[in-house]
Amino acid sequence: MNYLDLSIKIAVNNWQLQINAFNSVLDKLSDDQLMCEIAPGRNRGVYLLGHSTAVHDLMLPLLRFGDAVHPELHPLFVEAADRTIAEIPPIHQLKAQWKEVNDSLTAHINNLPVEEWFTRHNNISEENFEKEPQRNRLNVLFSRTNHLSYHRGQLALLIKKH
Amino acid sequence: MNYLDLSIKIAVNNWQLQINAFNSVLDKLSDDQLMCEIAPGRNRGVYLLGHSTAVHDLMLPLLRFGDAVHPELHPLFVEAADRTIAEIPPIHQLKAQWKEVNDSLTAHINNLPVEEWFTRHNNISEENFEKEPQRNRLNVLFSRTNHLSYHRGQLALLIKKH
Repeated sequence: MNYLDLSIKIAVNNWQLQINAFNSVLDKLSDDQLMCEIAPGRNRGVYLLGHSTAVHDLMLPLLRFGDAVHPELHPLFVEAADRTIAEIPPIHQLKAQWKEVNDSLTAHINNLPVEEWFTRHNNISEENFEKEPQRNRLNVLFSRTNHLSYHRGQLALLIKKH
Repeated sequence: MNYLDLSIKIAVNNWQLQINAFNSVLDKLSDDQLMCEIAPGRNRGVYLLGHSTAVHDLMLPLLRFGDAVHPELHPLFVEAADRTIAEIPPIHQLKAQWKEVNDSLTAHINNLPVEEWFTRHNNISEENFEKEPQRNRLNVLFSRTNHLSYHRGQLALLIKKH
């Protein structure tokens, strides 16, 4: 395997590791725990689940893989802060959507040819991309991998201490 | 710039972005706030600062850049849990060490030739590395970038809400 292929393999693997680690935290939390705030006055676990799902859903158009699957989550979990909207989907539904969105993303990510990672993401024009070639799909993968780690660190605070 | 160079540039840039973002959170916190727990019964901010410094310090030998600069931090902030050791360094000293370690790392990281990122890190033998070439220095950079995001998500909980 050449270095370029290896660098993409490592980046994709790192993304998958973070998804798995987030799922591992989710598996340790009951629905009651997910309804708790991660710290006093802060987001609830359920909001972080919905937020992560909505942000990953937005990766589908951002990476030019296709349309968002659950655009109805965006006003609830990206535009609105936690507890400002009374009605949010039940946890079992959010968990199913979280899995659905990631399964779709993973299929696209695993099938993307190496060179395609260096093409533009959808939030930059072709004209500007010529000047800023680092604003590519690979960069989106990196920043969203970090985003997921950030919220996993918070979600893990809901796990019961022994 | 070819794709391989670009992939390393993006990875290094992502690392630097996470350091900057962590520093931006630190800048918003008073010493009193850093002495608080991020959530009831969880690590204090000061512990996360010491822990991140100790882990980054360990990256120097792990990436084969040189010896750790502050090995005295490892028993306090890696091997020991928070509040199990009474005497820890004062915050102003930890902040200086955090900067010192990252400055050293950054200088090495920015000077490492692209091909060198694909050589082994220090926790794998040359023999095993032949079988698992993904266990290279680039992989360490990715995993530590995620590690820092994880703890930044926690540290940010200490920022006062308006």
